[in-house]
Amino acid sequence: MKKPPLILVSNDDGITSKGIKLLVELMQKLGEVVVIAPDSPQSGMGHAITVGNTLRLHESNLFDGVKAYQCSGTPADCVKMGKGFILNGRKISLVVSGINHGSNTAISVIYSGTMSAALEGAIEDIPSIGFSLCNHSMNADFSHIKKHILKITSQVLNTGLPKGVALNINFPPKQSTPIKGIKICRQTRSKWQEEFDRRVDPTGSQYFWLTGSFVNQDKGEDNDEWAVANNFTSVVPVSFDLTAYHAIGILNKEWDI
Amino acid sequence: MKKPPLILVSNDDGITSKGIKLLVELMQKLGEVVVIAPDSPQSGMGHAITVGNTLRLHESNLFDGVKAYQCSGTPADCVKMGKGFILNGRKISLVVSGINHGSNTAISVIYSGTMSAALEGAIEDIPSIGFSLCNHSMNADFSHIKKHILKITSQVLNTGLPKGVALNINFPPKQSTPIKGIKICRQTRSKWQEEFDRRVDPTGSQYFWLTGSFVNQDKGEDNDEWAVANNFTSVVPVSFDLTAYHAIGILNKEWDI
Repeated sequence: MKKPPLILVSNDDGITSKGIKLLVELMQKLGEVVVIAPDSPQSGMGHAITVGNTLRLHESNLFDGVKAYQCSGTPADCVKMGKGFILNGRKISLVVSGINHGSNTAISVIYSGTMSAALEGAIEDIPSIGFSLCNHSMNADFSHIKKHILKITSQVLNTGLPKGVALNINFPPKQSTPIKGIKICRQTRSKWQEEFDRRVDPTGSQYFWLTGSFVNQDKGEDNDEWAVANNFTSVVPVSFDLTAYHAIGILNKEWDI
Repeated sequence: MKKPPLILVSNDDGITSKGIKLLVELMQKLGEVVVIAPDSPQSGMGHAITVGNTLRLHESNLFDGVKAYQCSGTPADCVKMGKGFILNGRKISLVVSGINHGSNTAISVIYSGTMSAALEGAIEDIPSIGFSLCNHSMNADFSHIKKHILKITSQVLNTGLPKGVALNINFPPKQSTPIKGIKICRQTRSKWQEEFDRRVDPTGSQYFWLTGSFVNQDKGEDNDEWAVANNFTSVVPVSFDLTAYHAIGILNKEWDI
């Protein structure tokens, strides 16, 4: 009999969130699950890691029958501790991260703690997936996305992923009609238009809240924003090789060096 | 007479570091400089931004004749505050970040606060460059790289950069012979092999330091690790579009969705 695959689960909303609870339940259908997740919310942490500071790690009994740990670090730290310490020497078949409460489409992928856990898995040559639901509510309804999570994860367990590639999966929020299907997409060209909400604290000193609105600069129908806006699940293959290969030739030609 | 270009300077080692001081002095030769840098070291912050927490911003008089601000946030926050608040409405000609005390070659680009400031500039469609010296010492000798910083920055001010592209520049540490030249490179295939240094605090609880060693998985001579190891300045054009375009076709073909 084949050994069940070992699946490492993390997230960025923290170990107590509803999204990771469902993800753990679903992954238990597919393999042996070990959870290592932040002990507090880590949204917007990008690919931060903890250097110059210490890390704490404690066992958690939040998940029935599942080995679980909460870590004081970032999502990337959690995957590093999973690979390099808790599961050291064991073959991890899959890293899954999420389910994030909120969208990680478009440029948000770069600020996303959820996706940094998945990219960290890919750097370690482990097939890795980040799941996000485009609904920020802590009590979001995840019932409509279970089937797609199992379908996509089974597919990745069966066929693997191209080397150096992780998946950024975004699900539309629950609507009156079922999700139309799964679309392989590219990252939407976009940015956040920042605004700073200036306030004054009780001692008279100013402080700021970073706020902003999403600016979609992309009219294509092959991108992840279009997909979720049109009630599709979007799948964007993402890379941790940031090289802009097309620009190498341009610089070599244009630059006088 | 043409107005001098407006140059936003940031970093991740913090506003008091030696690297940013030199970068400000060099940029003053090329344009009007405004500094917005973290008030404390932010190494390894990746593309983190401050959400769910407040930001502080204070004027600094660290740089003679230069408007400067220290910010409690990450390098990406600093660029966002520069663009969206301090310089709101003004045309920024260039974002430069650094000079980092330590290498940001290879996979380190993804963990780098220095490079997140540069990528944040690129997201805002501003030509942007991150500079790093492959020497971690806080008192590193930067004297051998001044000429290349001015050369590369002048080139970018003159010809711009391809859309969506920032530059990741790494300089070799000072050696007995001058730097051999400037090479346009790709990101080295590599990873960090983590180790966790487990310790016990005075109350008897365990904690960890994340440590590790760099693993170069790349035998090429066209990558940034090779360049700096061979006493060249490396220039890697990097993108914030993480889409692994080559994988879209593979997934569409292989997946049964």
